[in-house]
Amino acid sequence: MEMSSKLLQKAVEEISQLPGIGKRTALRLALHLLKQPQEQSLHLAEAIKKMREEIQFCRKCHNISDVEVCEICANPSRDESLICVVEDVRDVMAIENTGLFKGLYHVLGGKISPIDGIGPGQLNITTLVEKVRTGVVKELIFALSPTMEGDTTNFYIYKQIKGSDVVTSTIARGIAVGDELEFADEVTLGRSIMHRVPFESSLKNN
Amino acid sequence: MEMSSKLLQKAVEEISQLPGIGKRTALRLALHLLKQPQEQSLHLAEAIKKMREEIQFCRKCHNISDVEVCEICANPSRDESLICVVEDVRDVMAIENTGLFKGLYHVLGGKISPIDGIGPGQLNITTLVEKVRTGVVKELIFALSPTMEGDTTNFYIYKQIKGSDVVTSTIARGIAVGDELEFADEVTLGRSIMHRVPFESSLKNN
Ligand SMILES: [Zn+2]
Ligand SMILES: [Zn+2]
Repeated sequence: MEMSSKLLQKAVEEISQLPGIGKRTALRLALHLLKQPQEQSLHLAEAIKKMREEIQFCRKCHNISDVEVCEICANPSRDESLICVVEDVRDVMAIENTGLFKGLYHVLGGKISPIDGIGPGQLNITTLVEKVRTGVVKELIFALSPTMEGDTTNFYIYKQIKGSDVVTSTIARGIAVGDELEFADEVTLGRSIMHRVPFESSLKNN
Repeated sequence: MEMSSKLLQKAVEEISQLPGIGKRTALRLALHLLKQPQEQSLHLAEAIKKMREEIQFCRKCHNISDVEVCEICANPSRDESLICVVEDVRDVMAIENTGLFKGLYHVLGGKISPIDGIGPGQLNITTLVEKVRTGVVKELIFALSPTMEGDTTNFYIYKQIKGSDVVTSTIARGIAVGDELEFADEVTLGRSIMHRVPFESSLKNN
């Protein structure tokens, strides 16, 4: 698309790099910004820049955080013997929204997926295994999306920590197999954590 | 949505101000940016900021431009006696893409729409009437979307320039009535400009 303004063209190109946003949508968004007060664009640009430059990941659980240790890990009333293993930050938010879980999290940053070229080495698995070896953790709850990649990742971690005294469980599969965890409603998600089952028994049921 | 990072929360709030982008999509976009190299976010932020701060509107046709007079108006091979009146910048791009129109444009910046509180005073109509009065213009092609608001706007301008020698035409309504101009395919749009009809006859056909 040849545009009369290189400034507009550049903005459209950058916006259309975002997933799910084509050139036409990007153009509509850019023209919308041009019609709005200048502050809106400047605030948007500043928020994106500041987020990307200053955001940190909790050194304990890898959750997104503005400080070295996230609010959840820093909360003394949370049960540090109970670790919920999740794929990404959205899952932490989704589970926190249920208000039912009082343990801590461990954010893997993805699932093992050979098709997408993601192996165990690209995920935060080593720090999880180390955490288990400290002896503080009594139970790991696998809360990955119940897809093939999720199952593979659960099983990989399960093998890594075998021999320790840690109990492993998976969230109850009230969530339809194949569904993404983040789209589950709060009630279903809350219940599936409360009714978690030992990981070994989930293998038998497969 | 309560987030573990105020930086992330702020970015999500700003992104979700964009039309058609809800909080969930905004969060997905923000988390995507966090996974990409830092440059992508910085380039995106910079492109939006620069566009909004530096963009200009052509003082002749109100097209978006990086300079005072846009490339189209500054092109001596374009026919300045033929003016295509359009709603917004996307329509200029759509018609330019057909490669068939060799006149100039006049961008109104919208359509008269009492429901949306848009009257003639908020559109670039005065400068169009002045342009017609200079005597250089021989024909005005109304290329607004064939909706009720488009028809109202055409008719308002038509009355404003009555008494001048300017010929008025509308693009051939090969485009389904009620459709937005920008979604027309290039062939249909190109033909509808070539087969334009005198504006008066389009009134009789209504
Ligand atoms: Zn943490
Ligand atoms: Zn111009």
